[in-house]
Amino acid sequence: VRIVLDAMGGDFAPANPVAGAVLAARSLGVSITLVGQAEVVEAELARHNTQGLDLAVVDAPRVVAMDEHAPAEAARTQDDTSLARGLALVRRGEAEAFVTMGHTGAALAAATFGLGRIPGVRRPALGCPFPTMGAPCVLVDVGASADARPEFLLHFGVMGSAYAEAIFGVERPRVGILTIGEERGKGNELVQEALPLLEASDLNFIGNIEGRDIPAGVVDVAVMEGFTGNVLVKFAEGLARLVGQVLNDAARSDPLAMAGGLLMRPALGRARRQMDYRQYGGAMLLGVRGVVVIGHGRSDDVAIRNSVDAALKGVRQGLVASIGAAVARHPVARRPLERPAGEPA
Amino acid sequence: VRIVLDAMGGDFAPANPVAGAVLAARSLGVSITLVGQAEVVEAELARHNTQGLDLAVVDAPRVVAMDEHAPAEAARTQDDTSLARGLALVRRGEAEAFVTMGHTGAALAAATFGLGRIPGVRRPALGCPFPTMGAPCVLVDVGASADARPEFLLHFGVMGSAYAEAIFGVERPRVGILTIGEERGKGNELVQEALPLLEASDLNFIGNIEGRDIPAGVVDVAVMEGFTGNVLVKFAEGLARLVGQVLNDAARSDPLAMAGGLLMRPALGRARRQMDYRQYGGAMLLGVRGVVVIGHGRSDDVAIRNSVDAALKGVRQGLVASIGAAVARHPVARRPLERPAGEPA
Repeated sequence: VRIVLDAMGGDFAPANPVAGAVLAARSLGVSITLVGQAEVVEAELARHNTQGLDLAVVDAPRVVAMDEHAPAEAARTQDDTSLARGLALVRRGEAEAFVTMGHTGAALAAATFGLGRIPGVRRPALGCPFPTMGAPCVLVDVGASADARPEFLLHFGVMGSAYAEAIFGVERPRVGILTIGEERGKGNELVQEALPLLEASDLNFIGNIEGRDIPAGVVDVAVMEGFTGNVLVKFAEGLARLVGQVLNDAARSDPLAMAGGLLMRPALGRARRQMDYRQYGGAMLLGVRGVVVIGHGRSDDVAIRNSVDAALKGVRQGLVASIGAAVARHPVARRPLERPAGEPA
Repeated sequence: VRIVLDAMGGDFAPANPVAGAVLAARSLGVSITLVGQAEVVEAELARHNTQGLDLAVVDAPRVVAMDEHAPAEAARTQDDTSLARGLALVRRGEAEAFVTMGHTGAALAAATFGLGRIPGVRRPALGCPFPTMGAPCVLVDVGASADARPEFLLHFGVMGSAYAEAIFGVERPRVGILTIGEERGKGNELVQEALPLLEASDLNFIGNIEGRDIPAGVVDVAVMEGFTGNVLVKFAEGLARLVGQVLNDAARSDPLAMAGGLLMRPALGRARRQMDYRQYGGAMLLGVRGVVVIGHGRSDDVAIRNSVDAALKGVRQGLVASIGAAVARHPVARRPLERPAGEPA
């Protein structure tokens, strides 16, 4: 299997993507094509021992900035970015998957434009594994689109279920729809209209869930529209930072606590790793004709290796084909869109 | 000041509300009327030393179950519940505020029906303080309604700002609207339409914020529709439980960590209290003609005392009048509602 890695994407490019590529090639035995400014990438590669590894470099002169403001426009007009050139390799069948730590919106737009949607899929969605006490819970959508329709949510459940099965090996994943509980009449209009569609599906659909059910591990797949999902994952990120800071302050607050903190350090490190959602390698774009993983911009080499691992599983388990088959079993009407939003036409 | 406390609301009623009433009366010097099944409440009161405290009991034979499924219907038809009778005392001017740990949906419906809305307010909202590294951030709305309109969000900001000022003493609170960042075209349609309304207001509006900005303490008031807000606070509750469990497991994982955990226990306790949003006494219903605090169902006596304290501040700072004045400065069109949702007509 050959996987394309965007060498220019992320806050620490090209250093971290190149280090992640070397680590992934060695530990997973996978072939990797690094796409980016060839001279820069080659120079970075020269700092590593790459003996025996299948690492290729493909040139792409233009870099998409992490603060690019018109990603959809850029995806349509720029064919010389690492995103566009990398995705072209997948489209032409020269590689099996695409992995980037770059600008999420730009990657979404470039992948949807560059690979196209799987037939029957109205809106691609970002699936993001979230830690629980047990297996991760896949949140879908965490921000591929912002204004959803009931039939999009049905497909989010269908695609999320295929993803949980392929990447995490969950049989018959439990799927729930995120809402705000019976007290308020079972949620908003969108959820109320999506509920019967999910109930009529062939998914292992367990019904409504609330926010607290996600960390509790009540479901394997939590369906939500992209606005809520994106707010949730960013909120969790902010909370993790806050908790870390509060615990740090607590540990420094008195000499006894400081001594205790030293004794607990290895255990706390394990706890932190258990809660770090980057262990799963980031989010996967579901519904496009190819395996696409979009990792966190701050990913280190291990997180990037995990992103490549997720992509590899997606390829080996035939994720795109199983999403195609699952969506075909759940056709939805092609109502005209009132507003095409950020999605490339 | 006399405050009405629902003696029958919450998971541990009447024990915790009665204990909370005694604690609040003693520590805050406030007069409290407990509403509920008189015999039961009197019996519970007899277990406390109430000498010198101004504690009255008003009978209400019917109890609203914590799993009541038709709260709006119940609010309209049942005038003998502790909710209805307690709110009637406030409506008639015999008490200044109402506090309950009971069923949130039932309390919302009963308060909106029993007290009426402040003139100009289209939708009452639940404001909920959330811990940050600094002062709490008020999330508004956390679930009083589920499908919002842009003009509701404007009023959520206006009411949330008055609340942060009255209860937390913040001058010119910084107000932000929760969205999903520039990458996705600045959020969904609702947020895009609400943004110019907030920008044109006389609030200290700082613009868009993302999920991670809430725990970071970037704003004093975070505006969002009730679906997202409710999902967020319940998600945070679930995460707190997960983090607690993971830390506990970590502390027990080896003898060194266990010893460290013992040394750190007091400091960790302080950290936990700093992160416990119940310290603020729960959510406040904004936009009705009266001060109404709805605390967490699992509140202990200290949390209930804090709820009474929040209500007391609302009364003393003239929160209802300042919301009335602020809403009058920000009139919105009375467009017919497509769907009245859970709100009593």
